[in-house]
Amino acid sequence: MSLIQEKANQAIQILNEQNTDMWLTFVRETSGVRDPALDLLVGANDLTWPSALIFTRRGDKVAIVGNLEKEAVGRLDIFDEILGYDTSIREILRETIKRLNPDRIAVNTSRNNVHADGLTHAMYEFLCEYLSGTPYSERLTSAEALISALRGRKTPAEQARIRKAVEITDEIYRKTFDFIKVGMTEIEVGEYMQNLARGYGVGLAWPAENCPAVNSGPHSPVGHSGPTDIKIERGHIIHFDFGVKYEDYCSDIQRICYVLREDETEAPIAVQRGFLTIRTAIEKSREAMKAGVTGNSIDVISREVITDSGYAEFNYALGHQLGRVAHDGGALLGPLWEKYGDSPNQKLEVGQVFTIEPGLAVEGYGYIGLEEDVVMTADGAEYFGEPQKAIVLLRG
Amino acid sequence: MSLIQEKANQAIQILNEQNTDMWLTFVRETSGVRDPALDLLVGANDLTWPSALIFTRRGDKVAIVGNLEKEAVGRLDIFDEILGYDTSIREILRETIKRLNPDRIAVNTSRNNVHADGLTHAMYEFLCEYLSGTPYSERLTSAEALISALRGRKTPAEQARIRKAVEITDEIYRKTFDFIKVGMTEIEVGEYMQNLARGYGVGLAWPAENCPAVNSGPHSPVGHSGPTDIKIERGHIIHFDFGVKYEDYCSDIQRICYVLREDETEAPIAVQRGFLTIRTAIEKSREAMKAGVTGNSIDVISREVITDSGYAEFNYALGHQLGRVAHDGGALLGPLWEKYGDSPNQKLEVGQVFTIEPGLAVEGYGYIGLEEDVVMTADGAEYFGEPQKAIVLLRG
Repeated sequence: MSLIQEKANQAIQILNEQNTDMWLTFVRETSGVRDPALDLLVGANDLTWPSALIFTRRGDKVAIVGNLEKEAVGRLDIFDEILGYDTSIREILRETIKRLNPDRIAVNTSRNNVHADGLTHAMYEFLCEYLSGTPYSERLTSAEALISALRGRKTPAEQARIRKAVEITDEIYRKTFDFIKVGMTEIEVGEYMQNLARGYGVGLAWPAENCPAVNSGPHSPVGHSGPTDIKIERGHIIHFDFGVKYEDYCSDIQRICYVLREDETEAPIAVQRGFLTIRTAIEKSREAMKAGVTGNSIDVISREVITDSGYAEFNYALGHQLGRVAHDGGALLGPLWEKYGDSPNQKLEVGQVFTIEPGLAVEGYGYIGLEEDVVMTADGAEYFGEPQKAIVLLRG
Repeated sequence: MSLIQEKANQAIQILNEQNTDMWLTFVRETSGVRDPALDLLVGANDLTWPSALIFTRRGDKVAIVGNLEKEAVGRLDIFDEILGYDTSIREILRETIKRLNPDRIAVNTSRNNVHADGLTHAMYEFLCEYLSGTPYSERLTSAEALISALRGRKTPAEQARIRKAVEITDEIYRKTFDFIKVGMTEIEVGEYMQNLARGYGVGLAWPAENCPAVNSGPHSPVGHSGPTDIKIERGHIIHFDFGVKYEDYCSDIQRICYVLREDETEAPIAVQRGFLTIRTAIEKSREAMKAGVTGNSIDVISREVITDSGYAEFNYALGHQLGRVAHDGGALLGPLWEKYGDSPNQKLEVGQVFTIEPGLAVEGYGYIGLEEDVVMTADGAEYFGEPQKAIVLLRG
C-alpha cells in the first residue's frame, strides 16, 4: 500500500472517531495556491481546475476533477469514484453532495493549524455560493481536528522516513565538525553542509536561504536568517540549525560546538553552564511528554529551567511538530501567546513527532540552542537519533 | 537592483495607476500555505509567524514580522520599515494601519486569479477581527487587479529568464528527437528529457509526474498525466508537453513528431492536415493579439479554425500566462466557461507572456498539440523561440 493510500484509510478512521460525516477539500490551480492537505491526498500532483476531494465516514472516496486530470488522479488508486467535467464544477459538486447527504462537511479552514487552512477566502465564497439554496451551506465546519490528527499521527512508514532524515542530518553534522577551521566564514560552512546534503540526494527541510543557520560567536544574528561573512574564531560558540527532507519528510536539528582557545582544554564554565541548562531543559521536557498532556505544560517546564537558572526566556515556542514540512502544525509545545492561537492547549497523541529546542545566549561567547527530534509512543517521547549530550570541542 | 526590488517599485506604480491606497499581504507559516504573492515580495524566504507586508501609493514599504525574522527580511533590502514583535501581531498591525490611514486596503482574495488569492479564509477572519472597531475593516477590497498587473507585466529581467527557459527547452527537444527509437516506451523518453533538464541545471516547470507528458499513438491518454508503458511504433504521432524552470521562471512548450512507416517519406495526409490546422490556428491567434483586446477574442479564433476544419473543439483554454509558474493566472486566452471566471474577459497588456496551445486528435495516428510561448509588445505578440513550423519526421 502506498503512503497516501495508508493516509486515506487513516482519514476515514478519524472521520469515524470524530463523528464527522464528510471531509471536503476544495481547490483550484494548485501550482499557484497549494492546500497542504493535497500532499496526503494526491501526492505531488497539481489540480488545475476547481476540484473537490471527498471522504466520508462510510468510506466513500470521491474526486471531482477536470476531465483532463481524471487519468492522473485515477493512477493514484485512492478514489473509488472519479467524476470529470469540462466547463463548471458547480452542478456536479452540488449533485454529489446531495447524493452523499452529509450532516456536517468539514472544510479546510482553521485558526490554529495552518496545515488545515488551505481553503482560500474566495474558494470559501464559491463553495457557499454553489451550495446556496441547499441545507449543506449551513453544515460547513472546520476540518482542523481531522487534519491535525491525520498529519500528526505518523504511520510507521512516515516515522521511518523521518528517522532516515535524522540519521543523514547527524552524519552531515559529524562531517561538518571535522571540516571547520578557524578563519572560515559562516557562509563557507553553510555551503559545505548544503553540498553534503546534495551528495546524500536529499532536499533541505526549509528554504536554502537559512538552511542551515550558522552562528559563530556573540555577534551573529540568531533567528531565521542565513549565515553571514562572520569568521569563526577561537572562543566562539558555533550554533547550527539544519534539517533535510528525505522522501518528503523532514528532520530539524540544532547543534553547537565550541572553538577552544590556545590555552583551553575544555569550554569555559559559562559555556558549560549554558549547555547543561539547555540539556536539562530538553530532558525534563521530554520526560514529561505523555499522550494526553497539553503542549503548553511541556513548554512551561523548559522555560522555567532556563529562567530559574537566571537566563532570559526564549521568545519562541519550545517545540513544533515535524513531518512533511519542518513546522508541521497542530499541537504545539508552546507558550499561551496570541500568535500561537489554541495550539499550545492541544493534547499530545501517540505517533506525533516533535522538536524540543530551547535556547539561551552566553554573553561574550554566542548562542546555545539544541534541538532534538522525538516521537510520541505509548511510553512517552523517544529520541529519533542520539541527542547531543556534550559540547563538541574544536581545536581550531 | 534585484528582481524583487524591481517588482516592489512596479507595485507602487500600479497602486498609483489603479488609485489604490494600500496593498496588504497577510500571511503566516508560509512553509504550510504559501501566498503566491510572496515570491515577488520576499523571494524564496518563508515567514513563520503572522506577518503583514504593506505597500502604499505614497511609496511606504512596511513589513511587520516576528522578531526572529527581522534580520532575514532586512537583508532583502525591500522594506523601509521593518517592525518586529514577539507575542501577537494584533496591536502593531492595527496601529500601523491607523497611522498609514488608507482609504482602501487591497488584500489577496480573488475569484478570477488564483495568484491573487493567497489569503485563506481563516486569515481573512483574523484580519477582520483585528481591524474591528476601526473604519478599516470596511475598507478591504480585492488586490486582484493589482496582482494581475504586477505578475502579468514582465520586466526585461523576467522576460530574459523566460527566454532562456525557452531556449533550453528547445535544445532538450532537439536532443530528444535524435534520441527516440521505435520500441522505446513513453516512460523512457520522459526520463531522458528529465535527465537532460538536470544536466542543464534547471528545474521542471510543473511536477515531475507529468513533466513531460509524452503521448505516442492514438491510444495514449492525453491530458495532465505522465508517460506510460506504451511503446513508440511506426505510424505514431508522438506528442510532448514539457517546460523547465530557469531562475524561477518557466517555459511551457508542446511539440510533435511523426514516426515514418517503412514505405513513407512524409507524414500521411491526415496528419499533415491536422498539423497545418493547428499551425494556422496558432498563427491567426497570435496575429490578433494586441494590447487592449480580450483573451476570449483570441481563443475564439483558434477554436473556429479547428471546428471549421471539421475537428472537435478542444476542451480547455487556448492559452494561459506564463511566469513563475507554468499557469501564471490573470487574463486568459479562454472560452467563457464558468470554471474560468472572468479571466477570459480581461484585456491583454504589454509585457504579458502567454502560451498558445490548440490541439486536435487525428484518428488512428495520435494527438497533435503545439504550444508556443509569446510575449506581448507594443506591436503585438512575439515568439520567444522558433515555433514548430513543420512536422519532425523520425525514421525509427
